Amino acid sequence: MIVELVNTGTELMLGRTLNTHQQWICRQLADAGRVVSRQVAVPDTAEAIRHSVRESLSRADLVITTGGLGPTSDDVTREFIAAMLGRPLREDLETFARIHHYFAARQRAEPPHAQVQAMVPEGAIVLPNSCGTAPGLAIEVDPNPFRPGGAKSWLVMLPGPPRELRPMFRESLIPLLNRVMPVDEPFVCRTLRATGIGESQLEQAVAPGLKRCVDAGLELGYCARIGQVDVRLAARGSEAGTVVAEADKIVRSCIGTHIYGEGEEEIEETIVRVLTARKETLGLAESCTGGCLANRITNVPGASQVLPAGWVTYSNEAKQLCLGVKSESLDRFGAVSEEVAREMAEGARVKAGSTYGIGITGIAGPGGGSPEKPVGTVFVGVAGPFPTLVRRYLNPFDRETFKQVTSQQAMDLLRRALQGADTAG
Amino acid sequence: MIVELVNTGTELMLGRTLNTHQQWICRQLADAGRVVSRQVAVPDTAEAIRHSVRESLSRADLVITTGGLGPTSDDVTREFIAAMLGRPLREDLETFARIHHYFAARQRAEPPHAQVQAMVPEGAIVLPNSCGTAPGLAIEVDPNPFRPGGAKSWLVMLPGPPRELRPMFRESLIPLLNRVMPVDEPFVCRTLRATGIGESQLEQAVAPGLKRCVDAGLELGYCARIGQVDVRLAARGSEAGTVVAEADKIVRSCIGTHIYGEGEEEIEETIVRVLTARKETLGLAESCTGGCLANRITNVPGASQVLPAGWVTYSNEAKQLCLGVKSESLDRFGAVSEEVAREMAEGARVKAGSTYGIGITGIAGPGGGSPEKPVGTVFVGVAGPFPTLVRRYLNPFDRETFKQVTSQQAMDLLRRALQGADTAG
Repeated sequence: MIVELVNTGTELMLGRTLNTHQQWICRQLADAGRVVSRQVAVPDTAEAIRHSVRESLSRADLVITTGGLGPTSDDVTREFIAAMLGRPLREDLETFARIHHYFAARQRAEPPHAQVQAMVPEGAIVLPNSCGTAPGLAIEVDPNPFRPGGAKSWLVMLPGPPRELRPMFRESLIPLLNRVMPVDEPFVCRTLRATGIGESQLEQAVAPGLKRCVDAGLELGYCARIGQVDVRLAARGSEAGTVVAEADKIVRSCIGTHIYGEGEEEIEETIVRVLTARKETLGLAESCTGGCLANRITNVPGASQVLPAGWVTYSNEAKQLCLGVKSESLDRFGAVSEEVAREMAEGARVKAGSTYGIGITGIAGPGGGSPEKPVGTVFVGVAGPFPTLVRRYLNPFDRETFKQVTSQQAMDLLRRALQGADTAG
Repeated sequence: MIVELVNTGTELMLGRTLNTHQQWICRQLADAGRVVSRQVAVPDTAEAIRHSVRESLSRADLVITTGGLGPTSDDVTREFIAAMLGRPLREDLETFARIHHYFAARQRAEPPHAQVQAMVPEGAIVLPNSCGTAPGLAIEVDPNPFRPGGAKSWLVMLPGPPRELRPMFRESLIPLLNRVMPVDEPFVCRTLRATGIGESQLEQAVAPGLKRCVDAGLELGYCARIGQVDVRLAARGSEAGTVVAEADKIVRSCIGTHIYGEGEEEIEETIVRVLTARKETLGLAESCTGGCLANRITNVPGASQVLPAGWVTYSNEAKQLCLGVKSESLDRFGAVSEEVAREMAEGARVKAGSTYGIGITGIAGPGGGSPEKPVGTVFVGVAGPFPTLVRRYLNPFDRETFKQVTSQQAMDLLRRALQGADTAG
């Protein structure tokens, strides 16, 4: 099955908007056994949209477009595609009522031209929009005039805003695809997420053991992201489930302690999930990560139940006043030291009244390094009902990468402590 | 001038990697007067790469590819393109030496196949890599066998990692392009960044006044991002500078108080820049934004000089203990209230010993709302050497958007206070 993606929007070509649709849609489809073979972005002009959609229709069984379904003058995708396919636009009464209700329920005036979004190409299936006004549209192009032999294709138009597109994709499009163009053989995909190990080190550890799975049809992929590596295990056919299960077992036996979760789970979600289940809490003392760790943890719904308090203490005074770090420790070892990380972690635990405390102190750069403690040096402490753990890392990256990697390492140290795997210090 | 971008990488098609190159490269080129007319992403297969590059060469004056120049087995772009153009690969001695030196300087063993990156298609210009090993390559395809009439094109191959691609793009590619294919007429582009105003409201405010500039050739664009709107003013030709300067003046006269900066400056950079120049400091007390504001401000190099301390105080106890919020205020008005935001801002200022203090309390959701204070309700306080300001907002968004928008509003309130524009309360 050939799938192509067409993202429309002049703002994409001017570099004003980051195209998050590509990754999100490709991932959703790939993990369901439908790999996108080509993605293209073009501006909102009649010629560019027509040309790219026609080209994709000439090759693909499924063409998905994003953007250009709204009410403003640059929302032209619906109109151009309907014209290209010779499908007149007709008002869809149910969509008309939904749009009307959308504004009424929010006590907002209906903007001019809102009802243009209720115009639907003849024969299209409407994908309702639960978070906005423009519905998605799915058209069975049969016969497909652009394809050799006229073999049919499906053309799906989705709205641009991610908060509208994503629920529509999950709730309406996936069920539709499963009905009208089911994946032709069983497909199983599992992603294991590892942290605290590099991509090549991970590959060296697992690849030899996985050789027989690969010979049996395992699709094996590694993807390094900031501070973590994903291992993607996929297989097709009647043995797919068995092959993936065996590969999963092998990977865990080789690098089990590095695996924090599965699928799309972020390590901050793991932390909040585990602490919530254990009815335990966490206090944070951050210096060089400047709130990055608190921000990541509080992105998870329910974080307020596990995180009573956090501190961002850049200055030595704040470290002493807020966390009780000793001035002798600061004088003797310096703010970036094992001792200060320990006292910050323990101070956060005491002051927050929490089960655990994390303390982070280091040099994010670009300035501030020394030969003994170069830029990127960081100490992370984890305090809890066990002897406080402190680890030293070297993360010589740009500032934002440093913060991301360091907060990842801190969460991983806590995760291991929670599992009791590393509590001996 | 027609420019096309080809991003190669199977990980893009599997949705494992976010394609940040598209936005970054499109923006760099557009702001220099070269708008990309088409971007395509394809997997690392010979057929997909050849097909897409050939297609782009058949249309474009400049084709830029990203990815596939490294030393591993899936780095195939250089080889396939060289073969397609009939350009044998030859070892480039300077690049060979650079790669060798790269590893020697880092005291790291040279990985197997590292020197494959020194293989350069005949006649290609080498774009040195100051942050990695794989150089970029620029080839003048003249005559261009894929283009009607054989008109020449430039084909540029860039490495995949952003930290290698970006400096190479700025330091080597832009000067090369300016030399071999200068923009044919003067081009001026300026972006004004506004916050605290919606896209359609902004458009209504500025569009009528800009009409005569648009008639004189102004390219006018709006781009709404989370919590802010960019206004892009561009023009071509001998009058470009005058047209953009006049448009700039008109926009500022209409919505001047909303404009916090220009170009790519984020509002957190504005805050750090202004506070640094004034030798003033800031303390932060965050509840519902959970460290998002501290994280954003500390993304800016030099933030440690202006931010002595910040608190994340979810629990009422932490608000009282860390910031001195009164228990009567919490009892009488609730944690999400004007009074508590005020006391948090003032407490942060006192406890941090800073010139200004920000206090934020609200309901990020998804749970916790009430009819009187629905999910998304937030109070922001700004304390300083003036009567404390408090504003109420309603940000009924998903959790991460809520945090982003709210921290934006808090910084905007501080920015206005710093400008003395809003100190009357």
